[in-house]
Amino acid sequence: MTQPLSIAVLVGSLRKESISRKVAEAAARLSKGGFSYGIVEIGALPLFNQDLEGGAEPAAWTEFRNKVRATQGVLFVTPEYNRSVPGALKNALDVGSRPYGHSVWFGKPAGIISVSPGALGAFGANHHLRQSLVFLNMPALAQPEAYVGHAAQLVADDFSITVEATRDFLRSFIAAFETWVRTLQPHA
Amino acid sequence: MTQPLSIAVLVGSLRKESISRKVAEAAARLSKGGFSYGIVEIGALPLFNQDLEGGAEPAAWTEFRNKVRATQGVLFVTPEYNRSVPGALKNALDVGSRPYGHSVWFGKPAGIISVSPGALGAFGANHHLRQSLVFLNMPALAQPEAYVGHAAQLVADDFSITVEATRDFLRSFIAAFETWVRTLQPHA
Amino acid sequence: MTQPLSIAVLVGSLRKESISRKVAEAAARLSKGGFSYGIVEIGALPLFNQDLEGGAEPAAWTEFRNKVRATQGVLFVTPEYNRSVPGALKNALDVGSRPYGHSVWFGKPAGIISVSPGALGAFGANHHLRQSLVFLNMPALAQPEAYVGHAAQLVADDFSITVEATRDFLRSFIAAFETWVRTLQPHA
Amino acid sequence: MTQPLSIAVLVGSLRKESISRKVAEAAARLSKGGFSYGIVEIGALPLFNQDLEGGAEPAAWTEFRNKVRATQGVLFVTPEYNRSVPGALKNALDVGSRPYGHSVWFGKPAGIISVSPGALGAFGANHHLRQSLVFLNMPALAQPEAYVGHAAQLVADDFSITVEATRDFLRSFIAAFETWVRTLQPHA
Repeated sequence: MTQPLSIAVLVGSLRKESISRKVAEAAARLSKGGFSYGIVEIGALPLFNQDLEGGAEPAAWTEFRNKVRATQGVLFVTPEYNRSVPGALKNALDVGSRPYGHSVWFGKPAGIISVSPGALGAFGANHHLRQSLVFLNMPALAQPEAYVGHAAQLVADDFSITVEATRDFLRSFIAAFETWVRTLQPHA
Repeated sequence: MTQPLSIAVLVGSLRKESISRKVAEAAARLSKGGFSYGIVEIGALPLFNQDLEGGAEPAAWTEFRNKVRATQGVLFVTPEYNRSVPGALKNALDVGSRPYGHSVWFGKPAGIISVSPGALGAFGANHHLRQSLVFLNMPALAQPEAYVGHAAQLVADDFSITVEATRDFLRSFIAAFETWVRTLQPHA
Repeated sequence: MTQPLSIAVLVGSLRKESISRKVAEAAARLSKGGFSYGIVEIGALPLFNQDLEGGAEPAAWTEFRNKVRATQGVLFVTPEYNRSVPGALKNALDVGSRPYGHSVWFGKPAGIISVSPGALGAFGANHHLRQSLVFLNMPALAQPEAYVGHAAQLVADDFSITVEATRDFLRSFIAAFETWVRTLQPHA
Repeated sequence: MTQPLSIAVLVGSLRKESISRKVAEAAARLSKGGFSYGIVEIGALPLFNQDLEGGAEPAAWTEFRNKVRATQGVLFVTPEYNRSVPGALKNALDVGSRPYGHSVWFGKPAGIISVSPGALGAFGANHHLRQSLVFLNMPALAQPEAYVGHAAQLVADDFSITVEATRDFLRSFIAAFETWVRTLQPHA
């Protein structure tokens, strides 16, 4: 019996009832199977500061890094703040990328769902995040791109998706993401 | 007698001996006069979280917003983390942009100096920051662009700049920045 | 009597019935007065090639440069092709930027309206264009940003705008653009 | 006996003695074998114009599309023009992406080498190109990134690379690119 592949889900918004978190929960439920999705929390990470490196680093940093390191892929679900990635999510990327030479991100395949209450689908956050993933050596799924707009009422209390076209789209996105993650796993 | 125009200097790195901080200090000393530069610290700002809004917000947020609000322009001096803006600096932008309709950034002219120990001059951070400034309605100086590479030994202990060409360049940058800030002040 | 300020309008799509062209025509009609808008055509410009410089350059290049040089500001109205600026528009920027030291763009204030038949409003083209404008020293209006989505039926045959909210928005955009261009004119 | 995998090399500059072209020639010579590299010319492509679609399209478009379609991967070697992709190269992307539903790019793995005479390594062109590749569904090699700066004297007349560190780097880049292309070939 094979182990499921483990996916770290990073949610770019910290508020409890965030739309992105709900979309993340809903998307994980659309898995075709063989994958285990778990949100890795980023809200308690102290801001990255190089002066804190090398000695007793914040325990939250270490814990976060260990959780990500144990996974085989990363799914980002994020809103846009000021036309870019939320500071909290960027900070999580920064924390995980250090210390130099020990990045937890290196080589992990990634997928991105950007989410907005408005029309533009958080395009700016989506592509700024992609630029960071190039540096972090996280091959990111190209197609389908996932810009989820008008998302305020999209996810019901049971994490089902209320709009059929979006549900179908996210199902195909997750299928493509899972194929992508499998394709890019290191060979045994 | 006219008051000097006050410039908030935001430094993208939190470590005490950061190159960006030194470049910021050095650049401020190249002012043509009539301006007052002061670093506004960003390292103690809790990560932006909408759940903290509306009630007793973190005192550090309020203090930060008040300091920026009292200025007439903003100078960003920042390294690049993972091909983008450091999480700490992006978080400061996010905190200052809230609550909705009360952004402290709105209308303030801006300048950007991106700084790196390597060759590329933190180009990625520079332009990701610019994309946010569009949304924040902060007109950003176009030319000269300031990509300060190979910056590790650039600033001496007395905050003089050790490379003459870079000193001359930064002097012309600051002159252009100050003209830019003056041109875009609201009329009395 | 003062001369009107002359605005070069660059349309990113070459097809005759392009939505962007119609939006450009419609936007020009919303002027508050004191401005003269004229589309400068880009479809006949040979691809920029440095080997053609220095001798008998293509007449179309010279003509294009002369037309832009005679204006006091530039309004870009463009679709997105493949998440970026259409090649034809980028080529026009390249042609106008040469030869080195003789760019026709230098110092001209700019505005950007990005247009799409879909929801995303050509965000990718809008911000890629902005990155070029930084280098070209064209200060670009920040707010309001203009992402015109669902634009297929937006402009009637008489160049009126069929959706009231969009008409009001574009009127406020043009007003802000014209203030921006005036503010950044060199002093007599 | 297996066929070599065929790589379309797209060079972003049109001039005959372009540095990017020389770097492209030099890079192809560093292949580990099993690949066949060929430059697909882009300088004779008429600007994309939707009005030309559907009937007798320019023969140069058809020829270009056929050449790209016959390959198993794409290597872009490009300078930066005005902080973005040269218009000629963007036009080639646009031409190859049409007509709708018949893009020649779809699914082809890609690599990017950006080249500049200065320090910044054409970072802006590199990442703008990546944003287009996401839409075109061309998975782009993440690491190593290739920003080739100070490139004016880099390639000798015999297409050897004069700087040893750069030669070693480009060899490792090509090795990673070839692994990437192999990994992402559709299964037989």
